[in-house]
Amino acid sequence: MTSQNPVFIPGPTNIPEILRKAVDMPTIDHRSPVFGKILHPALEGVKKVLKTTEGQVFVFPSTGTGGWETAISNTLSPGDKILATRNGMFSHRWIDMCQRHGLDVEVVTQEWGEGVPADRFEEILTADKAHQIKAVLATHNETATGVKSDIAAVRRALDAAGHPALLFVDGVSSIGSMDFRMDEWGVDIAITGSQKGFMLPPGLAIIGFSPKAMAAVETAKLPRTFFDIRDMAKGYAANGFPYTPPVGLLNGLNLSTQMLLEEGLENVFARHHRIAEGVRKAVSAWGLQLCATRPELYSDSVSAIRVPEGFDANKVVSHALESYGVAFGTGLGDVAGKVFRIGHLGSLTDVMALSGIATAEMVMADLGLPVTLGSGVAAAQEHYRKSATAIEKAA
Amino acid sequence: MTSQNPVFIPGPTNIPEILRKAVDMPTIDHRSPVFGKILHPALEGVKKVLKTTEGQVFVFPSTGTGGWETAISNTLSPGDKILATRNGMFSHRWIDMCQRHGLDVEVVTQEWGEGVPADRFEEILTADKAHQIKAVLATHNETATGVKSDIAAVRRALDAAGHPALLFVDGVSSIGSMDFRMDEWGVDIAITGSQKGFMLPPGLAIIGFSPKAMAAVETAKLPRTFFDIRDMAKGYAANGFPYTPPVGLLNGLNLSTQMLLEEGLENVFARHHRIAEGVRKAVSAWGLQLCATRPELYSDSVSAIRVPEGFDANKVVSHALESYGVAFGTGLGDVAGKVFRIGHLGSLTDVMALSGIATAEMVMADLGLPVTLGSGVAAAQEHYRKSATAIEKAA
Amino acid sequence: MTSQNPVFIPGPTNIPEILRKAVDMPTIDHRSPVFGKILHPALEGVKKVLKTTEGQVFVFPSTGTGGWETAISNTLSPGDKILATRNGMFSHRWIDMCQRHGLDVEVVTQEWGEGVPADRFEEILTADKAHQIKAVLATHNETATGVKSDIAAVRRALDAAGHPALLFVDGVSSIGSMDFRMDEWGVDIAITGSQKGFMLPPGLAIIGFSPKAMAAVETAKLPRTFFDIRDMAKGYAANGFPYTPPVGLLNGLNLSTQMLLEEGLENVFARHHRIAEGVRKAVSAWGLQLCATRPELYSDSVSAIRVPEGFDANKVVSHALESYGVAFGTGLGDVAGKVFRIGHLGSLTDVMALSGIATAEMVMADLGLPVTLGSGVAAAQEHYRKSATAIEKAA
Amino acid sequence: MTSQNPVFIPGPTNIPEILRKAVDMPTIDHRSPVFGKILHPALEGVKKVLKTTEGQVFVFPSTGTGGWETAISNTLSPGDKILATRNGMFSHRWIDMCQRHGLDVEVVTQEWGEGVPADRFEEILTADKAHQIKAVLATHNETATGVKSDIAAVRRALDAAGHPALLFVDGVSSIGSMDFRMDEWGVDIAITGSQKGFMLPPGLAIIGFSPKAMAAVETAKLPRTFFDIRDMAKGYAANGFPYTPPVGLLNGLNLSTQMLLEEGLENVFARHHRIAEGVRKAVSAWGLQLCATRPELYSDSVSAIRVPEGFDANKVVSHALESYGVAFGTGLGDVAGKVFRIGHLGSLTDVMALSGIATAEMVMADLGLPVTLGSGVAAAQEHYRKSATAIEKAA
Repeated sequence: MTSQNPVFIPGPTNIPEILRKAVDMPTIDHRSPVFGKILHPALEGVKKVLKTTEGQVFVFPSTGTGGWETAISNTLSPGDKILATRNGMFSHRWIDMCQRHGLDVEVVTQEWGEGVPADRFEEILTADKAHQIKAVLATHNETATGVKSDIAAVRRALDAAGHPALLFVDGVSSIGSMDFRMDEWGVDIAITGSQKGFMLPPGLAIIGFSPKAMAAVETAKLPRTFFDIRDMAKGYAANGFPYTPPVGLLNGLNLSTQMLLEEGLENVFARHHRIAEGVRKAVSAWGLQLCATRPELYSDSVSAIRVPEGFDANKVVSHALESYGVAFGTGLGDVAGKVFRIGHLGSLTDVMALSGIATAEMVMADLGLPVTLGSGVAAAQEHYRKSATAIEKAA
Repeated sequence: MTSQNPVFIPGPTNIPEILRKAVDMPTIDHRSPVFGKILHPALEGVKKVLKTTEGQVFVFPSTGTGGWETAISNTLSPGDKILATRNGMFSHRWIDMCQRHGLDVEVVTQEWGEGVPADRFEEILTADKAHQIKAVLATHNETATGVKSDIAAVRRALDAAGHPALLFVDGVSSIGSMDFRMDEWGVDIAITGSQKGFMLPPGLAIIGFSPKAMAAVETAKLPRTFFDIRDMAKGYAANGFPYTPPVGLLNGLNLSTQMLLEEGLENVFARHHRIAEGVRKAVSAWGLQLCATRPELYSDSVSAIRVPEGFDANKVVSHALESYGVAFGTGLGDVAGKVFRIGHLGSLTDVMALSGIATAEMVMADLGLPVTLGSGVAAAQEHYRKSATAIEKAA
Repeated sequence: MTSQNPVFIPGPTNIPEILRKAVDMPTIDHRSPVFGKILHPALEGVKKVLKTTEGQVFVFPSTGTGGWETAISNTLSPGDKILATRNGMFSHRWIDMCQRHGLDVEVVTQEWGEGVPADRFEEILTADKAHQIKAVLATHNETATGVKSDIAAVRRALDAAGHPALLFVDGVSSIGSMDFRMDEWGVDIAITGSQKGFMLPPGLAIIGFSPKAMAAVETAKLPRTFFDIRDMAKGYAANGFPYTPPVGLLNGLNLSTQMLLEEGLENVFARHHRIAEGVRKAVSAWGLQLCATRPELYSDSVSAIRVPEGFDANKVVSHALESYGVAFGTGLGDVAGKVFRIGHLGSLTDVMALSGIATAEMVMADLGLPVTLGSGVAAAQEHYRKSATAIEKAA
Repeated sequence: MTSQNPVFIPGPTNIPEILRKAVDMPTIDHRSPVFGKILHPALEGVKKVLKTTEGQVFVFPSTGTGGWETAISNTLSPGDKILATRNGMFSHRWIDMCQRHGLDVEVVTQEWGEGVPADRFEEILTADKAHQIKAVLATHNETATGVKSDIAAVRRALDAAGHPALLFVDGVSSIGSMDFRMDEWGVDIAITGSQKGFMLPPGLAIIGFSPKAMAAVETAKLPRTFFDIRDMAKGYAANGFPYTPPVGLLNGLNLSTQMLLEEGLENVFARHHRIAEGVRKAVSAWGLQLCATRPELYSDSVSAIRVPEGFDANKVVSHALESYGVAFGTGLGDVAGKVFRIGHLGSLTDVMALSGIATAEMVMADLGLPVTLGSGVAAAQEHYRKSATAIEKAA
């Protein structure tokens, strides 16, 4: 009697039926022309989702972590200086990877719950007259804290400083769910995976390179082969891959991008916002706070919810799983035990969201937290039914 | 973005992943020994679910309606007298079928919302000194009204009258969800389908015949070939079927019965009761009434909910589908427009049930019914979290 | 390591991947408008495959046998006289069904291996001045013997005799694989199933009724409810079914008819003919004979192959299954033990056919039959590679 | 009408139905205990397939190429000297990867068609008194040439030279299909992928590390994060992964190893040998030669077949695909245009193999090569039917 409840982890998401069927392919010959008819539309679809016309897209059989490594190893050399913020587990890990690859990372530490400090970045970049900083790293959506940062502001900081550093953005838990504009924001490398906004199983690192990032590849000295985009580009040009491609996932990616584009990216973002708002109304009704410190930081793909001081948030997650068969996300790193997370990205309906909210209420009541049963549900219902009407009127 | 919400129709039910995969089989040779290894365990499994050791089970590529026709055409002759109650759409249809097959049906009309009147049956049977009544028809669970009847009482009525009539029971929406005891209750023919308690797609009529019913086959004059259990029995004896068998569904049935028996039938029934109770608590919190007139009639597989006088219950169903993508059941026949139905049978979790309850609340609020958002959810949550604890303690 | 070899039984056929996925649907509400969007295009598609514009199509959760019963029970009355030929197991069974339904069947017995004798029919019909014969039964393709009969000739016989009898055609193993023209041939009821030319799992009886057959429904006295086309027609008119419909199979039928029509029926027939010819060339190379006595009787969906006198043909089938995991068809009825059958209908490539031919060779060699390994394969290869070229040139 | 013929590329292989269903999973919480119950048995299963009790197994969302990079980046430092043979495209690429990672590769060039020269290795290792060579690379099965090398002999060479270098073996197209003995042969790192002997879709790099290789990790200076086995080991210890794991593929790997071990590895190898022998008999009957120069080099997972001088072997592959919908492998690198390849690994029956052989015959005849239709098929049939009997007798 398993696998019936939706998951509320912040990715991998619930996979739509049609995408499961697209991924579940019999073996085809990946060196035959059939493969090119899957690969190229998938790449073109991703470009549109990234909102780039100038960039090139690369897809690796890997994960978002592999995407980070693709970014740095293809464009940087040992000892290169980079600028980054640590404001959550995922930005922390990317910084750690850079250091392990011999890069010199200037880390701006932020409270977990805060975003990327564009103003502080501007100061540092302005001060870097010698342009020693080769790349700026920014996590668009910190999955650990449910914090969305302002990437356009980071671009403005670079521009205001007149600084030529590359801008690398981790969009793993934002792209395909929240507004992302690669060209307009001057993002040089955008990184995501298959298992979040694209609603697919994990297994793909999806990466966009701007022309400026492509140029940097030629001089980058960090070793790479598996993640070398030059081999990948050569493969694509011959309708192939430099090694065995994950054909089923690429077939799924092709369909996923079609689905997102047919729905309309702005509608996809509005849908995520609507679902997320319902969750936030529920949190408010429970008398709880988000980890994200201000509304402009609120993520539309995941909410990290602070529990009362002294209470172990992990209990919410384990009790939900054991008693109700529902998966929420635990807190990670600095906020471990302090928050639990409700993922609300990908293909999720308001009806599904309500079941997650209702479960959280039962769990918290079971664990003795002062939550009124039905209170969060009612707040979310009120939001959903009114916003649904609005969408209907528009349609 | 379809097919993500559970369905809340009273069958076909939500199909567990593992059963979908069991049904989705590549073609095998149905005349090879492989088929017997699917067929016979499936039949044995059904016997256990029916709680019969004496009976024989037959499975046809058909539906519950085909099961009704199997029952009457294999045991009766034109002009035979039978006794039945009309207390909902499905009992109505079975009576209609009997009449169209030239049977003489004595119909005891009941209000829709009432059960099979065992005492009235006893009177009629007692009066039938000549034993002209050849069969008594009883619908165990009227899917249209959410009314469960007392089959053991019908058997007592027959016994008290010392009447030899056969007892035919429509258990389409009860078997596999609610307690059913073929041998103990002296049921001569039990009828169900694949798409309810067995949690499979539609496509199978599943029928149990007692030895007494088997004996009646020899003298029955109604014509039948497709539904002739003699051909079917001959087929089974040779590990086959009299025509092309629905192999995938039989494979699913084999697994489905294993799942039910491994969980334990009493646990399956308790699970259905627990989910149903939550729905009923919600109905109560909304200030509404069930169609079933008394608690002992309440069905654990479907609740038919009366809406206030003058309100069209069909609007609840159409609005739920259009605005929230959720399927409830409409009222049928005498209660069309007066009730809407929430199906809660098969593989349904409390979390899924809460999403249905939450949806119904939004729908009723949208349509102007005086329902407090979150009220039904809270009542159901209270029930689910306490009963879940009880189950845990037991485990 | 199972389910990897194609099956070579004369249905159910190998199911194309895309159709398996279409059938494997999550539960939808069959009373919602979504269902009508599956049902009606499926019915329209079937009409085109039957080549009828005047007829109505009905689909039952059943099998071809249920289709036979639908035909007779909806149009005939007990004691009605009908004319039929027994020239194989399936025509035999249909006759048996008619007799069990109280019809008076005039049976023209043919050798198994012969077709429907249109000239003999014409004599009988001409002699029936009183027009007591209400229906003529013809099996278009005898699956047991691999014999295709000339339905147009049967129509001409009726017309020449000026006889108003209805013409019922069992097209179970021809429709969707071989040319069938319901309107042009004046077929009043055409019967097939999901598991042959439509390449789906078993579970559907698919039936076309001409206006004349529809008119006969009003006066027919044979009892029927499950198979009553009046209930079915009423259901369709309301976008529904008189009972729970097999939604997944109907979804598959919708796609299957699209596939057949997109390929073009004439191309589908040519493809079957091409595959069948290869099998026949192999049979010839083996020095064996078909059960069908003359080339114009050769079926393009199944070949029944006579083994040498004194040899048990069933051994071919059991040895193929046990030693090579390949399913052929046994002989049935009068030709049991005398023939084995290679089914070559549905979605089968020449490459798959060659693997069946190669297997048959190994089997026969293993069993001591004087067959040269590779001989049948070579004959079929020669045919396939030349005919493939022809198709390419045409494309 | 696609995807019906088997593929005959040397991986990805035809995927058994049961493994496709195991991979096609709904999303679960990969941080829940459920995940550990998939992960650990899969890792244990791989250990048994590798025949190692001392080693540790790591599985990455990647490919065999990622496995190569895992091997070198976790154990070596820039400038380290390694010894390798270039005798095919895959050994060539691994050498290229090493060079791009700053390693100093001593390359022993072999004709393509030859194996790893253990005697030459012994000379070089013996001469390396200073033990500058840190690792020896060997490709167990060169997928490009169908050449199997003698890994035990390479181990003997190392031992004879008393040389402490690590032994890294690419077993991508051998492990799970041909005998491989990690512990007995003293293999320090064994590398494979999901899409060959494990019969799964591509997407996993599967790697075994000996204790000696584990020790080397601590001093290795090549940068790595995504492929760092220390992070992976930490993840496993906590029932998790350092990033989002490919849960479905791991679930498939768990089942795949169970299937292989239940069949018995020696039976799996014998099965592959039997199928391969049939293909080789066919090649011989065609009057053609394998690329592998001697029988002891013949691979049981892929045969590279030399075409007559002056003929373009790629035409065989493209014609087979275009005219018959069958995928063979092209020649790569030095043997491009000179060979075509028939993959015969994974879950392949003799019946499937015969269809590939029959197709190759038609293709060669179409292209004017002097091949007698049916000749290769007959030779393979003779082998298969005799060896099948032997297996039966044994069973």
